[in-house]
Amino acid sequence: MKEEIAQLDRHNCIEDCILELFSSSDRALSIEREIDAIAEEFLRRDRISTNLDLGSIVEQFRESQISAETSDLSSYLKDLTENVVLHSINTYSPRYIGHMTSALPYFVRPLGKLMTALNQNVVKMETSKSFSLLERQVLGTIHRSIYDFAEDFYQTHIQKNESTLGVLTTGGTLANLTALWCARNFVLGSKEGFTGIENEGLTAAFNAYGCEGAAIIGSQLMHYSFDKAAGLLGIGEKSLIKLPVDRDRRLNLSALRQAIQTCRDRGQRIIALVGIAGTTDCGAIDPLLEMAEIAQEANIHFHVDAAWGGPVIFSPQHREKLAGIEMADSVTIDGHKQLYLPMGIGMVLFRNPYLAKNIEKCAPYTIRKDSIDLGKRALEGSRPGMVLFLQAALKIIGKKGYEFLIDEGIRKARYMADCIRKQAEFELLVAPEINILLYRYIPQPWRQKVAAGQITELDNQKLDRFNECLQSLQLQTGRTFVSRTTIEIDGRPTIALRAVLANPLTTESDIDAVLEDQLKIAAQIPTNDEEVCR
Amino acid sequence: MKEEIAQLDRHNCIEDCILELFSSSDRALSIEREIDAIAEEFLRRDRISTNLDLGSIVEQFRESQISAETSDLSSYLKDLTENVVLHSINTYSPRYIGHMTSALPYFVRPLGKLMTALNQNVVKMETSKSFSLLERQVLGTIHRSIYDFAEDFYQTHIQKNESTLGVLTTGGTLANLTALWCARNFVLGSKEGFTGIENEGLTAAFNAYGCEGAAIIGSQLMHYSFDKAAGLLGIGEKSLIKLPVDRDRRLNLSALRQAIQTCRDRGQRIIALVGIAGTTDCGAIDPLLEMAEIAQEANIHFHVDAAWGGPVIFSPQHREKLAGIEMADSVTIDGHKQLYLPMGIGMVLFRNPYLAKNIEKCAPYTIRKDSIDLGKRALEGSRPGMVLFLQAALKIIGKKGYEFLIDEGIRKARYMADCIRKQAEFELLVAPEINILLYRYIPQPWRQKVAAGQITELDNQKLDRFNECLQSLQLQTGRTFVSRTTIEIDGRPTIALRAVLANPLTTESDIDAVLEDQLKIAAQIPTNDEEVCR
Repeated sequence: MKEEIAQLDRHNCIEDCILELFSSSDRALSIEREIDAIAEEFLRRDRISTNLDLGSIVEQFRESQISAETSDLSSYLKDLTENVVLHSINTYSPRYIGHMTSALPYFVRPLGKLMTALNQNVVKMETSKSFSLLERQVLGTIHRSIYDFAEDFYQTHIQKNESTLGVLTTGGTLANLTALWCARNFVLGSKEGFTGIENEGLTAAFNAYGCEGAAIIGSQLMHYSFDKAAGLLGIGEKSLIKLPVDRDRRLNLSALRQAIQTCRDRGQRIIALVGIAGTTDCGAIDPLLEMAEIAQEANIHFHVDAAWGGPVIFSPQHREKLAGIEMADSVTIDGHKQLYLPMGIGMVLFRNPYLAKNIEKCAPYTIRKDSIDLGKRALEGSRPGMVLFLQAALKIIGKKGYEFLIDEGIRKARYMADCIRKQAEFELLVAPEINILLYRYIPQPWRQKVAAGQITELDNQKLDRFNECLQSLQLQTGRTFVSRTTIEIDGRPTIALRAVLANPLTTESDIDAVLEDQLKIAAQIPTNDEEVCR
Repeated sequence: MKEEIAQLDRHNCIEDCILELFSSSDRALSIEREIDAIAEEFLRRDRISTNLDLGSIVEQFRESQISAETSDLSSYLKDLTENVVLHSINTYSPRYIGHMTSALPYFVRPLGKLMTALNQNVVKMETSKSFSLLERQVLGTIHRSIYDFAEDFYQTHIQKNESTLGVLTTGGTLANLTALWCARNFVLGSKEGFTGIENEGLTAAFNAYGCEGAAIIGSQLMHYSFDKAAGLLGIGEKSLIKLPVDRDRRLNLSALRQAIQTCRDRGQRIIALVGIAGTTDCGAIDPLLEMAEIAQEANIHFHVDAAWGGPVIFSPQHREKLAGIEMADSVTIDGHKQLYLPMGIGMVLFRNPYLAKNIEKCAPYTIRKDSIDLGKRALEGSRPGMVLFLQAALKIIGKKGYEFLIDEGIRKARYMADCIRKQAEFELLVAPEINILLYRYIPQPWRQKVAAGQITELDNQKLDRFNECLQSLQLQTGRTFVSRTTIEIDGRPTIALRAVLANPLTTESDIDAVLEDQLKIAAQIPTNDEEVCR
């Protein structure tokens, strides 16, 4: 009896605790203040990260038992602050100029809370209603910014069930994959005696079309999401044809013409030609116009991966760099990159509003054929109303605001490139086409050789190791940050420092500070002992 | 000159406006209050949605021009409130019991803001640091809840670069796809003279393994994400073998044994056997233990889609229903379903910590081979620190809290089933295995026939139309909500009303109210005129 009462008590306590978590209360308000304070403290942070070595941080993330009891919120928040937030990365810092992550406009933060509060699921009208319509509308406006079709076109398609002007995804990877999935299913679609690749599979498709495999063609600088896509879609990474680039890191057009011919000769069906508007490594832009013309002539799906460079269309001064994008059959743009939205927003736009019918699926319990449920022509199923951020930014930042942000990034990248050119300590490896540049530090003993162009392979190996070391130490020190990559220079994979100038808060003096910090750190790295940086 | 000054002014104004958006200011604080007020008003809402007809709402989402100028935040928020939020769905309502979306614990709302503020990108340590470690850790705790390996195992693998205990995704669809991608690449992996399917593609793989195609096997109630996966992975939907279910909607085991034999006879390579722990339509759970044994014996990858039912493992009273899940090679669980997290959180767990090596990718600019960057064994690239929500919930709700939530949902579903059994107006079609049930309304003229089991095909057609109409009108009226689906009953596709009892705020009297509302709405639908509901 006593035992039973104790059990009942425990049950009632759990019941009260849990139901309180799902209600609004004074407790909820005070927790909210505590969490707000954590965010505010993070935003006031100066350093990029703590300089505690990774090994000791890892030790704090080893416990694998789930807590049995409901734990006190305040003690959870204490742990969150001291162990997790403290060792996160200050992506807002104006001196964190190494990745495609930047400070965000303040309105996205309360909107993040609003989106969580609304908890809409755009897979289906019944779980989102206005948010499904909003997503269609906002993707329509982006479509228009790229393709600029007549008003009539948008009036017809923007909310029409059969039409899909675009799909919102969580990022460029899923956007690229969605585009190629559509393209594959279109190119190897149903025909007399064949119900299509989506239903019958790759082998049957090759038989039906009498072809010896398939291919996707682009430059060697394609994002690694294309490797994923080629693997996933069943054609294999081997069938992702990676063409050489010119010195300016743009796809070589004669190699392209040759590759198309080779595919034809081999009987390989070309699923898509990929143009890049802003390579991940250095922001180079492929010759989109010429590629579009070649694709059109050869009747090949032309996909442009503008995950990084897409928003350049908002800059009258620079949009010419993207000429030809309006001829693409599909375009990827990331929201969490140069649209300055929180992580988790990408999109693919389709020139032909019916292309996405090639990936349509239905299900009796959720996605009905006659509904305008967004789940039916998308890779993902349930997903949040992320469009809220995109709509807000397009309205509040607007075309002019994006123009300013893009122009400023390019201006600052040129400033940084100039600084590097002027300092003997650095060598500019790739000048910025838009707002990414590659360079390296040259320790004193090699400066003359570099200036004279007399660097040997052995020298390069030492420079590689030095720059790798410099970048690691800089991250570890935590005051400033650039990333690093490996690029082919004269056929040799070379370690480069990589700066991405996208943060609107970054000023010239921040750029100076990043370079000065590197000089300081470099001065501490011995150049005579090869083992120092291992 | 005048023109130039005007232009300069405009530029400076844009500069000021934009830079203000990226800084903290009093203005930012006041906007934050306004946005908070929108969320609070939404959370106080009583109705499921407005009863304005969809056609008129659609008209408000047709504009496709992007605003040139930066627009005033307050007027944006006014528009957001009046046109978007107003017509969204109140997924928190205790009388919205039709989909897998529910009220959320309050702490996720401020955490939504914190996550947006931190804006970590877990693709890479350099853009997330502690968040990458946290994600690994939290997935380890879920892994342990399912597989319960020894402490040693978790100490070894939880933070080991080569190991992947799980992958966080945006939902069950990507989790299922990731699992099958791993399984496909494992089953058709590299061997003497063959570098593996991921590299060489499907046709080469079939040649190398001397097989006539591949197959994925599961019940006919598999989620439609498996159709997507079969299509995407290149084997084709046709190779997704959908087996019949028994009356209790669990996969028929003798059909399974037969199917495996047929695949073998045909030379079809079986990529995976899929067991469902909570079908989307009615929450049925496949005979996982028997399936696991069959899979083990036949050496087939066994994947369990526990997107809905996974958290039942936290209930000592009910976890027996999932017996066998601990033998699965991979398991999908959704966070935004019965873990009560915001939309956009799913995960896949792997029994073998090295299985995900089959999908590994690297890239020089971001994902280096020796790093513990999370982007290298995942479908997605850049993605946010969603693990924040998962960690918080596991700590704050805890095992006991989830036990309570699961037990309560099942108890309430049984209560609702009892109510339905007692009322002649309703017919219970599928009793709840866990917390989903299917039923339909029977208008007066058919009640005796239903009771006597004398319903004809024509009767059923009328009942279908009536229930379709009832559900639409209920949604349109906006006071209460259940969803609808089509299920096979005695070989006939039958329209069913579908209730999902997961919202902790739903009480018995809410359930009564939903049924009463249906009686009221049904009374207004004529049964003699077939055209009424069209």
